[in-house]
Amino acid sequence: MEVLAALNLGDIAQIFSKMGMFPVFDLAYYIVSILYLKYEPGSVEVSRRSPVASWLCAMLYCFGSYILADIMLGHSPLDYFQHNSHILLASAVWYLIFYCPLNLFYKCVAFLPVKLVLVALKEVVRTRKIAAGVHHAHHAYHHGFFIMVIVGYVKGSGVALMSNFEQLLRGVWRPDTNEILNMSFPTKASLYGAILFTLQEAHILPVAKSTLILCFTLFMATSKVVMTARHSHGSPFALIESWDHHAAPTSPLKTKEELSEGTRKRKTKKAE
Amino acid sequence: MEVLAALNLGDIAQIFSKMGMFPVFDLAYYIVSILYLKYEPGSVEVSRRSPVASWLCAMLYCFGSYILADIMLGHSPLDYFQHNSHILLASAVWYLIFYCPLNLFYKCVAFLPVKLVLVALKEVVRTRKIAAGVHHAHHAYHHGFFIMVIVGYVKGSGVALMSNFEQLLRGVWRPDTNEILNMSFPTKASLYGAILFTLQEAHILPVAKSTLILCFTLFMATSKVVMTARHSHGSPFALIESWDHHAAPTSPLKTKEELSEGTRKRKTKKAE
Amino acid sequence: MEVLAALNLGDIAQIFSKMGMFPVFDLAYYIVSILYLKYEPGSVEVSRRSPVASWLCAMLYCFGSYILADIMLGHSPLDYFQHNSHILLASAVWYLIFYCPLNLFYKCVAFLPVKLVLVALKEVVRTRKIAAGVHHAHHAYHHGFFIMVIVGYVKGSGVALMSNFEQLLRGVWRPDTNEILNMSFPTKASLYGAILFTLQEAHILPVAKSTLILCFTLFMATSKVVMTARHSHGSPFALIESWDHHAAPTSPLKTKEELSEGTRKRKTKKAE
Repeated sequence: MEVLAALNLGDIAQIFSKMGMFPVFDLAYYIVSILYLKYEPGSVEVSRRSPVASWLCAMLYCFGSYILADIMLGHSPLDYFQHNSHILLASAVWYLIFYCPLNLFYKCVAFLPVKLVLVALKEVVRTRKIAAGVHHAHHAYHHGFFIMVIVGYVKGSGVALMSNFEQLLRGVWRPDTNEILNMSFPTKASLYGAILFTLQEAHILPVAKSTLILCFTLFMATSKVVMTARHSHGSPFALIESWDHHAAPTSPLKTKEELSEGTRKRKTKKAE
Repeated sequence: MEVLAALNLGDIAQIFSKMGMFPVFDLAYYIVSILYLKYEPGSVEVSRRSPVASWLCAMLYCFGSYILADIMLGHSPLDYFQHNSHILLASAVWYLIFYCPLNLFYKCVAFLPVKLVLVALKEVVRTRKIAAGVHHAHHAYHHGFFIMVIVGYVKGSGVALMSNFEQLLRGVWRPDTNEILNMSFPTKASLYGAILFTLQEAHILPVAKSTLILCFTLFMATSKVVMTARHSHGSPFALIESWDHHAAPTSPLKTKEELSEGTRKRKTKKAE
Repeated sequence: MEVLAALNLGDIAQIFSKMGMFPVFDLAYYIVSILYLKYEPGSVEVSRRSPVASWLCAMLYCFGSYILADIMLGHSPLDYFQHNSHILLASAVWYLIFYCPLNLFYKCVAFLPVKLVLVALKEVVRTRKIAAGVHHAHHAYHHGFFIMVIVGYVKGSGVALMSNFEQLLRGVWRPDTNEILNMSFPTKASLYGAILFTLQEAHILPVAKSTLILCFTLFMATSKVVMTARHSHGSPFALIESWDHHAAPTSPLKTKEELSEGTRKRKTKKAE
């Protein structure tokens, strides 16, 4: 019976890891990403003043991970832009989120139950990207374990790692912080994920890649859905980290990000 | 008779599009570009304090379009620097404009009738660069229409697109604006030009490339010569755009750039 | 007799230029580089707040020259990270310098007699890097003399040339200055070295490469050891340059860097 169960899990993982991402999962990824762009203060004004700058930012939000990974591996940063259908789909999402009459599309996708589904789908894409990034780097550098981790990391984190320069495109400059100095949960999870996938690729972690993809996707989707539902930025790692720092009481404290989370939406609504 | 006329125009366009750019047209391009560098506040002081920084800025002004296009296509950003004669010619122009005794060279090329000719010649080079950029990208990515537009765009705009980082090299940092957020006329025209040449390359625009080069060159040269002669930054697109924005009265207003245009020269003279 | 002496010098130069750099010389390079990182104000705090950011900075300090040269030649910026043993060695040095109990390792290597030896060994690596950079660029572009100089220059200067962005990673932003605008002695010497090695590669300088490596290493090691021993930032070029500028009295003046040199160590000690 147990063997059968294991076989079934393996089968499910196999099927799950072979599933195509385009267009459903990618669409969810684009919608959630550009939603986060609209949450950024000033981004609506930019979309009115300079549609080109706004479109470029949206492309960075959707394809930043591909651009960064291509740069890291010495390829053309525009390489992914040869997939016209992906670019057109992301452009359509950008148009609908920023310019749809009555702000209808934005209201639909920002409606919490819809958003929770989209957020879960986005994490499926993120995990796949990390696995693909590590695999791609492994193909180019067979024993370059550091390269595998870095490429997997940038594939998972995407635009967050270049947020300083993405903001600069919108005329905003905050040099006192960056995503590496103050890692958010998805960035940190991407780093751990990239390390896990690299260990798997190096045959140190004795587990099938499809199983790892399934498990990591479940962890990421659950975490992000719970965090989004609770409007929280406190990461699931906080428990372990606070224990590391001799039980510093980080959880009851509202961080700056959490406080701004509430006001963010009001501002976005006002900006419409 | 009409067939003959059309043939003649086609022949002229053919000859014009085959004409070599080096050294006459390229020389005009270098002179006008480095002239604009000298107009930048503080650039004369930089040339005294650090000739290496000043030379690097001059190279970015002359070859920024090649550097950006090479980066976009994943090549070495220094690739164009293998053409020693081009670099030496641009360096000679840089030396004469910044260090010539009595500021003689600067006075000659900044003399309006001379400058108007040089500006017209520069636009010939710009149009050729856009066409070559689109063609080059088409060669690398046969159906990558977005890539063609972007490469043609950066080939036409050149240093303007990296002005934030070019200024940083001179110790100036203005993060609140950039060329994509506030497009100048040449940048905007380069974008439209890149779209036109991409449509031509995709056989959607039913016109010969040589004809398109001729027409676009004439449009650019005329526009820039008129704008330079009138010391104006108001773009020929302003009419259409103001109509777009329900006839906002943008033309009678003096923009910040126009106001600074007048004072710019005085400052440059004083800095000598 | 003289022929014999020349032969001997040539032999010594030959043996010296063939000597392997890993692990002894490279280790000295990593120690001195990360020591300079620890001198930077705020770097100890960053190592506590975000070990990932601190590790990345340390890697930029150790391998910045490889990263920059790879970018300049259009290769993957992570290319050097395939050498796992080098990365692990540099990471161990980073760990010991920032996290060693009682700050023991730092105290040992910052002890002046030890530091002087390490500084001398570092300059051996620097000279080799310049020669290798010029040779590498010559291989890719046979007549690209400007490319050879630039690649040799970035190989010699390393992280200094991207100090603005390395600081940004630590949340520090000083746009009013950069290494090209205010060249330090090693950067300036790297530029002159790159020009010399390019002339040698182009057969304009009639001297064997091994001899040039030996002479330039001796000059660099002597200069840096004397400067470190005297806690001075006044460069050996200052004499020639002050003569150039009609004997401006630059040497008696304490520069901002020199003044901060003294306080720097106190601050670093306090930060422990």
